[in-house]
Amino acid sequence: MADPRFFDRAGPFPLGVVAELADATLGANADPGREMTDVAPLQSAGPRDVSFFDNRRYADSLGVSTAGSCLIRPSDTGKAPPGMALLVTEAPYLSFARVSRAFYPVPAMEPGIAPTAAIDPTAAIGPDCRVDHFAVIEANVSIGARCHIGPQAVIGKGVSIGEDSRIGAGCSLGHCIVGSRVRLFAGVRIGEDGFGFATERESGIHVDIPQIGRVVIEDDVAVGANSTIDRGAGPDTVIGQGTRIDNLVQIGHNVVLGRGCIIVAQAGVAGSAELGDFAVLAAQSGVAGHIKVGVRGRVAAMSGAMRDVADGETVAGAPAMPIKQFFRGIASLKRLSERE
Amino acid sequence: MADPRFFDRAGPFPLGVVAELADATLGANADPGREMTDVAPLQSAGPRDVSFFDNRRYADSLGVSTAGSCLIRPSDTGKAPPGMALLVTEAPYLSFARVSRAFYPVPAMEPGIAPTAAIDPTAAIGPDCRVDHFAVIEANVSIGARCHIGPQAVIGKGVSIGEDSRIGAGCSLGHCIVGSRVRLFAGVRIGEDGFGFATERESGIHVDIPQIGRVVIEDDVAVGANSTIDRGAGPDTVIGQGTRIDNLVQIGHNVVLGRGCIIVAQAGVAGSAELGDFAVLAAQSGVAGHIKVGVRGRVAAMSGAMRDVADGETVAGAPAMPIKQFFRGIASLKRLSERE
Amino acid sequence: MADPRFFDRAGPFPLGVVAELADATLGANADPGREMTDVAPLQSAGPRDVSFFDNRRYADSLGVSTAGSCLIRPSDTGKAPPGMALLVTEAPYLSFARVSRAFYPVPAMEPGIAPTAAIDPTAAIGPDCRVDHFAVIEANVSIGARCHIGPQAVIGKGVSIGEDSRIGAGCSLGHCIVGSRVRLFAGVRIGEDGFGFATERESGIHVDIPQIGRVVIEDDVAVGANSTIDRGAGPDTVIGQGTRIDNLVQIGHNVVLGRGCIIVAQAGVAGSAELGDFAVLAAQSGVAGHIKVGVRGRVAAMSGAMRDVADGETVAGAPAMPIKQFFRGIASLKRLSERE
Repeated sequence: MADPRFFDRAGPFPLGVVAELADATLGANADPGREMTDVAPLQSAGPRDVSFFDNRRYADSLGVSTAGSCLIRPSDTGKAPPGMALLVTEAPYLSFARVSRAFYPVPAMEPGIAPTAAIDPTAAIGPDCRVDHFAVIEANVSIGARCHIGPQAVIGKGVSIGEDSRIGAGCSLGHCIVGSRVRLFAGVRIGEDGFGFATERESGIHVDIPQIGRVVIEDDVAVGANSTIDRGAGPDTVIGQGTRIDNLVQIGHNVVLGRGCIIVAQAGVAGSAELGDFAVLAAQSGVAGHIKVGVRGRVAAMSGAMRDVADGETVAGAPAMPIKQFFRGIASLKRLSERE
Repeated sequence: MADPRFFDRAGPFPLGVVAELADATLGANADPGREMTDVAPLQSAGPRDVSFFDNRRYADSLGVSTAGSCLIRPSDTGKAPPGMALLVTEAPYLSFARVSRAFYPVPAMEPGIAPTAAIDPTAAIGPDCRVDHFAVIEANVSIGARCHIGPQAVIGKGVSIGEDSRIGAGCSLGHCIVGSRVRLFAGVRIGEDGFGFATERESGIHVDIPQIGRVVIEDDVAVGANSTIDRGAGPDTVIGQGTRIDNLVQIGHNVVLGRGCIIVAQAGVAGSAELGDFAVLAAQSGVAGHIKVGVRGRVAAMSGAMRDVADGETVAGAPAMPIKQFFRGIASLKRLSERE
Repeated sequence: MADPRFFDRAGPFPLGVVAELADATLGANADPGREMTDVAPLQSAGPRDVSFFDNRRYADSLGVSTAGSCLIRPSDTGKAPPGMALLVTEAPYLSFARVSRAFYPVPAMEPGIAPTAAIDPTAAIGPDCRVDHFAVIEANVSIGARCHIGPQAVIGKGVSIGEDSRIGAGCSLGHCIVGSRVRLFAGVRIGEDGFGFATERESGIHVDIPQIGRVVIEDDVAVGANSTIDRGAGPDTVIGQGTRIDNLVQIGHNVVLGRGCIIVAQAGVAGSAELGDFAVLAAQSGVAGHIKVGVRGRVAAMSGAMRDVADGETVAGAPAMPIKQFFRGIASLKRLSERE
């Protein structure tokens, strides 16, 4: 179970309630009144835990698991050991997310403004917000209801934030419009100058282009620790609704990310690139400047898209090509070097 | 136009003044007294905006643009629509940088020391500096005139900073000498220990090598958000005058960067590497330890220089090779795998 | 010599003492009473400096060096110029680490709690700690003796830290157990949510999986500036004893690193990967999710391990393969493209 120093657990919940939370059907032999006290992976789950089976890779674990109940696909129910209460659903992992959240709700936030926070008198802070120690809120900032501004976060002048957003420790925000239910983890940097300059031919001196756009972060976005999102040069940098950005990601100026994109750790998107809805950039991948990645387009880990990626296409390699072609090349090269 | 919550616009400026700022020649039919009120890209510029045409890729946009005036090369003037006032220059983008700056000057900084800043009595802070909330300035620090120390920045003991430099929110500086007109964006880490240790053979224990060098940042350098520059092990780490470093870049101990280098986001330079003046590291590239990149040498995106790069040479791939050879290899591999 | 604004030097030490510190044998003609005042690399060392010769690459420097004394392997003593006092050891670099530390001891820390720090009354702080300006220590934190909590560090509720650990400026720690003699450099983020969510098929909405594990950082670990270590999803994320992590490294949820691992700058380890003791990830490399790297396994710079790496094996490329095979492939491709 989760360390009680850090996590408060709710429940127990009877299996009938778990099934409802999970949008699952309770297996024939399961007792809807049987109480479950926690969630756990198959390997460590005990008789009062809810577990899940979503990845065939772990079929062995399922067979020997002592989990009291398990979220499972209809097609996999035959693999479960007898006696395990089955919670049958087409989407076990999604159901597990919902059940886990019931056992481990988002911790309630105690509203209040730390006396050490430095808040400009012109800032408007909505009801029931929490502002932690040494946060700085500058002139003309507007923050909606129930936001949490973490310790030492800096909200620069004129920034607006919607409702129920959480800004982590030591973040700094400038020149941006942030939506509701947005989460920025610690150390995120929003709205710094884009990397734009022109170079004098003879002297080699770099002359900055004023960066006069903003960052627009739509609702329900999450941005991982120490990631950086530069403001636009003229147009805005836009992070689409529900997009998830992992740690140490770089988003350049003028980039437009669609809805529900997934940008995994240490990936980078160069200036003026565009990603369609639900596009995925795997870890340490990159998209070159001005390139378009289509709807549900995907760039594999450590790969670099230097040409447009079509809707639904997956590319790999640096420079990136269709992923089948990439792996064919790897195989050809292997054979070639073995022949020589 | 730029969001007035974040940006103050100057002007308007008559075309004659714009031409002077741009070091451009006003086209034959242009009225030098006509007033321009803003800058904008070709796609969105209106009749009172100054735009620019620098990239043939955008020739279509030029033809249909409603921009009132446009910075343009002599050889491209024929592509502009009639009625557009032309500002003819060999360097449209550089001219645009200058004109943009006139419309959007660097915001004036209001000097003053926040009462919440923690400043050691032995620190010397020049006239007309601004020190923001919760900044920490330790013993024997020396800061020149008109510097801006952002909120929660930490200036470690003995550090010196020249004039007109700007240290962003939450930066931390130690063991360094920083020049004038330097800008460090938020979250930059200067002068931490280099990654140096020796390992005991039997135990596998790593024993640190004391890192007793400094970081020297010359005048006019800019360092992007959350980048890290370690201090030297014995010699100094040096960032040459006018160099531009983007976000999330790593500079190892003892590295020497020449003047006017460009280090794009998420690139890394390993210990004791040297870059000549005006060298360029594209995004997510790397230079291995002790390697030398020559004057105007370039490493392509996602490429890793493991051998020296000659003056003016461009390399690509990991390990990096001359860029033509790299792309020939990619093409050969493609043909090979198609044949098989 | 090191800049006295930043470093305090101890000594001088007679050669006999240096030999003892280095676990080295003094050469036949060396006077054990001769005093050494500093350490320096071969190129710049003078008659009163201790230097070292460990890398044959620098044999030329050895021959012309004016270093008064030099740590050197028995097999290399013939290469030293006459008159140089030799300190003969099988591990010159390790010996140099020890001698350097004698000349440049870790600076003594003045204990004390800054009056500006915000410390929850339920936090337990051991004797002789130092807590700097604007640090935040939340409820139920436990910190052992002689720790140093840097300016603006945030120690989240319930976190425990052992003895003699040093937390850098602006770090934030949550949901973690930190050992003794651990060093976190500036801007490190420990214990943020892992990147875990399930996606609704029709809507594309990402639903978070509560991340209910911790980060466990064992004794003697060092973590470089702006690196990020996410907490586990259910199991813990574990950083093994003595492991060294460089700057801007990402460690995903549930990752387990063994003892004495070396993770060089900008490398990333994806969720649930495991590294054996003394494994090495070179700069900008990556390990995919759920992959195992064996004891003393190594991943080359810019390479990505997508399959398990055996004990003692070195892999290169993306996707990574045995390093010999990788370089054979590079050579084959070169020949192929030259033929065409």
